[in-house]
Amino acid sequence: MQLLKEKILLEGKVLSDEILKVDSFLNHQLDPVLMKEMGAEFAGRFADQQITKVLTIESSGIAPAMMTALELGVPVVFARKKKSLTLTEKVYQAEVFSFTKQEMNMITVSKDYLSSNDRVLIIDDFLANGQAAKGLIQIVKQADADLAGLGIVIEKSFQEGGKKLRESGVRVESLAEVASLKNGQVTFLSRLCKN
Amino acid sequence: MQLLKEKILLEGKVLSDEILKVDSFLNHQLDPVLMKEMGAEFAGRFADQQITKVLTIESSGIAPAMMTALELGVPVVFARKKKSLTLTEKVYQAEVFSFTKQEMNMITVSKDYLSSNDRVLIIDDFLANGQAAKGLIQIVKQADADLAGLGIVIEKSFQEGGKKLRESGVRVESLAEVASLKNGQVTFLSRLCKN
Repeated sequence: MQLLKEKILLEGKVLSDEILKVDSFLNHQLDPVLMKEMGAEFAGRFADQQITKVLTIESSGIAPAMMTALELGVPVVFARKKKSLTLTEKVYQAEVFSFTKQEMNMITVSKDYLSSNDRVLIIDDFLANGQAAKGLIQIVKQADADLAGLGIVIEKSFQEGGKKLRESGVRVESLAEVASLKNGQVTFLSRLCKN
Repeated sequence: MQLLKEKILLEGKVLSDEILKVDSFLNHQLDPVLMKEMGAEFAGRFADQQITKVLTIESSGIAPAMMTALELGVPVVFARKKKSLTLTEKVYQAEVFSFTKQEMNMITVSKDYLSSNDRVLIIDDFLANGQAAKGLIQIVKQADADLAGLGIVIEKSFQEGGKKLRESGVRVESLAEVASLKNGQVTFLSRLCKN
């Protein structure tokens, strides 16, 4: 997605060969117009998939998931990283390790909001090692729901998450695929047969 | 806001005299159409206020803040409850006690995204004791920014947060004001001179 790539080049900060910081529009400050465009793009790519629910994880997944769900006309469910005191009912759970925060989180989704009747689109901000994605997919499986695929804002293609997911047969649609962050430079991957 | 009140009556669960659970559309599953309506309502109420930034706190504030910011044509900044490893720059900080989770959080906003040039609308999901609101107001003050007011989805008017904030001169606009949760019943407050 050209608009997103331009934004990354303009405002993204390469902190190391592995870390791209996009706090100005995705992870701390949010650009609502860009979010709307991204939501429309995800919705378009999965338009024929009869999605009934968008699943994401707090916090940075919520905004792009919301805009996608608004376009698709379905609800969002966001997995919680901590169990709330008011989340008392039966839940699906999966373990997710965060490399950014260097901690293990148990992610939780209430059984009230995901069932075997759902066809799920998972949306998240980043795909790197695929830990969050794997946790969310586990939750979709626990619910016995169908997985339509993953919509990712920024995929770090030099890390193995996306490759492994695609090899396992999961459809992954990333709006920007970063091939390298070496020498402080963002280089994008260009896939064949893709816009 | 009638649509929201109807949703609360239909789907809200009164867990005690103090706790109203609205996980089906605000705190775990999100209703994008309702979010859009609420965003339009907040934007309308603060339309003449020259807002330059919407400030909220992760996670449940993000969706209504996003929709408000989209209507107003300004960015959102969400305060983080934990400092991210990639949040390396100078920050504003304030302490917030969460009664729901029974824990103290240090909330953090990067100095890059809030300055003395900003006129800020704070958006949050709930207002009860006003702890989160106070923390966010402290951050607006630290940035030497102007505070236009607070937009709250559900105010628990039987708790003191809203009253104290209004007494201190802060404009608080709540879309639904819950007067009581006694006997498992949601009773709304009707303010004079308000829709």
